Amino acid sequence: VGDVYVTGAGMIKFGWYSDAALGEMAAPACHRALESAGISIDEVEALFCAHSMCGRVAGQRILRHVGARGIPVINVENACAGGSTAINLAWAAVAAGQYRTVLVLGVEQMSRGLIPPNIDNFEATLGLTLPAKYALRAKRHMFKYGLTERQLALVAVKNLANGSLNPYAKYQTPLSLDQVLQARMVAEPLTLYQCTSNTDGAAAVVISARPSARAVKIKASVVNSGRYVSYGEEGVSADDELTRRTARMAYEQAGLGPEDVDVAEVHDAFTIGEILAYENLGFCPVGEGGRFIEEGSSGRDGKVAVNPSGGLLARGHPLGATGVAQACEVYWQLTGQAGNRQVEGARVGLTHTVGGATPNIGSGACVVSIFVV
Amino acid sequence: VGDVYVTGAGMIKFGWYSDAALGEMAAPACHRALESAGISIDEVEALFCAHSMCGRVAGQRILRHVGARGIPVINVENACAGGSTAINLAWAAVAAGQYRTVLVLGVEQMSRGLIPPNIDNFEATLGLTLPAKYALRAKRHMFKYGLTERQLALVAVKNLANGSLNPYAKYQTPLSLDQVLQARMVAEPLTLYQCTSNTDGAAAVVISARPSARAVKIKASVVNSGRYVSYGEEGVSADDELTRRTARMAYEQAGLGPEDVDVAEVHDAFTIGEILAYENLGFCPVGEGGRFIEEGSSGRDGKVAVNPSGGLLARGHPLGATGVAQACEVYWQLTGQAGNRQVEGARVGLTHTVGGATPNIGSGACVVSIFVV
Repeated sequence: VGDVYVTGAGMIKFGWYSDAALGEMAAPACHRALESAGISIDEVEALFCAHSMCGRVAGQRILRHVGARGIPVINVENACAGGSTAINLAWAAVAAGQYRTVLVLGVEQMSRGLIPPNIDNFEATLGLTLPAKYALRAKRHMFKYGLTERQLALVAVKNLANGSLNPYAKYQTPLSLDQVLQARMVAEPLTLYQCTSNTDGAAAVVISARPSARAVKIKASVVNSGRYVSYGEEGVSADDELTRRTARMAYEQAGLGPEDVDVAEVHDAFTIGEILAYENLGFCPVGEGGRFIEEGSSGRDGKVAVNPSGGLLARGHPLGATGVAQACEVYWQLTGQAGNRQVEGARVGLTHTVGGATPNIGSGACVVSIFVV
Repeated sequence: VGDVYVTGAGMIKFGWYSDAALGEMAAPACHRALESAGISIDEVEALFCAHSMCGRVAGQRILRHVGARGIPVINVENACAGGSTAINLAWAAVAAGQYRTVLVLGVEQMSRGLIPPNIDNFEATLGLTLPAKYALRAKRHMFKYGLTERQLALVAVKNLANGSLNPYAKYQTPLSLDQVLQARMVAEPLTLYQCTSNTDGAAAVVISARPSARAVKIKASVVNSGRYVSYGEEGVSADDELTRRTARMAYEQAGLGPEDVDVAEVHDAFTIGEILAYENLGFCPVGEGGRFIEEGSSGRDGKVAVNPSGGLLARGHPLGATGVAQACEVYWQLTGQAGNRQVEGARVGLTHTVGGATPNIGSGACVVSIFVV
């Protein structure tokens, strides 16, 4: 199995594009990724397109706006982790020699319709929507480990500050701790700015067996789904177990550990998600996530720069696009192209995405990938 | 890149399952495939789930009914070719050594909602729906090559006769030539029984690097999308060009030719689709598809047994499930498990699926796979 690289990345600014056709909206992300990789569309041998709500054969409908002809198109759905799953598939296909160079696109046009409920998700039907679910996880952390509302809010303060330096983020206005704490309550203890937002968006990366001048090697990529665990059985929630297991496998595949990671884009759909990610990815011991943010350890000049892009909180969260946008940021950080938000000397990057709330098993998908330069 | 096998297959009878939860409906197909392969669910390292309309993380929601815990789940969408695309991805992942044994499931529950229009498919919006599109292809073949209504109808007669021997087909009643010709007109010259039907369904295969007692080797699997061609440019329609190009690549990958194929499951969404498949897959020269069916060359004892299962016409067409159902039939035929409809001495099988009508490029996906025993 050969080496595989991210050789280019491109995005559009996340926001509302309700007047654009899907292909018109997504094509610029593809063109920027190709330009970044220094290749023409003719070198692309397949398209992997991640989305949840763009309708049938979305990748094909976009492809003609990109200018490609007749190449294989694979449409991938894995809810919030779709983009990362598409990267996993592209990595495997290139590693296997099936294709030499492929394009991965993540896209969602939520202005055309928000997330419909899955008919058999009885938990959500009964009120356990995602904000409620994450709020319960936050309450449990407060009860068990003494997490404070201030610590939670600091995640939003950090990510919105980072996002103010990211030209692709939906929200580019920094907020104070007081502004975050005093905002409208969505699901106690999560205030408005502690929740990601619906948005349109598109992000693309080029993945190839042939490194470009500025290439990042994919050292590991692991997809998993949740198990049927409950607090009672193993003392750990299904989602915590899922990220821990996936991270362990990814670190092993990469031959690296959490102490090696310089930059991490993690799934901060809600502030508590990032706190738990610190712990579950091994950046700090379990229970100390609150202290980790408070001490500045996840800042751009901290122990590990977490969500230097601003994360889902600043960027917005167009389901299928998020994982690819995370990979874009890691690519830019590791190749010194992150502008004002550049993390100095970053050599190892990690992406972490979870999604697809599924009754009984927690999240249906978790992907952890590790990149090195 | 190592050898990859289909080691087991399972289906449910296609029909209406409106009262069943998605997982309840799909799980028996998975259990039968596992039983057929002689393995337990614990040996399955990943699930590839093809569907177009089952909602987010459908594979994960089904998985708990199957009894697996925490394995990677990849949801694939490629319209009518989704099932075949999932097989292509599974084959690549196993060939690359990413997983040793995986389960591929194709599923659709159309009783919960029929195919919604893609907002940007202006052709369909203006009336060029799939029956209309195929009807035009039939009219052109009549004009150009003298195809007759009788020849077209004979495809339905053959496939419904085959379907009457297939316990998994939705329609198991053979019809006479007169019954087919005199049925209600859907889109001239295609009468009712010349069009496939909406249905619920689920089909599964086990794909593994480790052959079972009754295993079929995957010799080739190629996915492509349509090009922007018009009759004017190359004298061939976008869909004909797509199948010809994909078949050519698959034959080359397998080191085999059309003359080697004993059994073929092809995309007879409409009778004309099968006529064109004879030609585009190389079973007969271009223009002679009508004569090919008339001479009985595609019968179970003909030159190549085409759609011994009854095809989409008898089985019904639950989009994502169709490609996997085709692979089930080829598996059963090549391993002598096809009961009353067994094609004697079948050693080479082919599946052909097309789907995802996309303005300007014809079909968005075509998959041709070749299997040998």
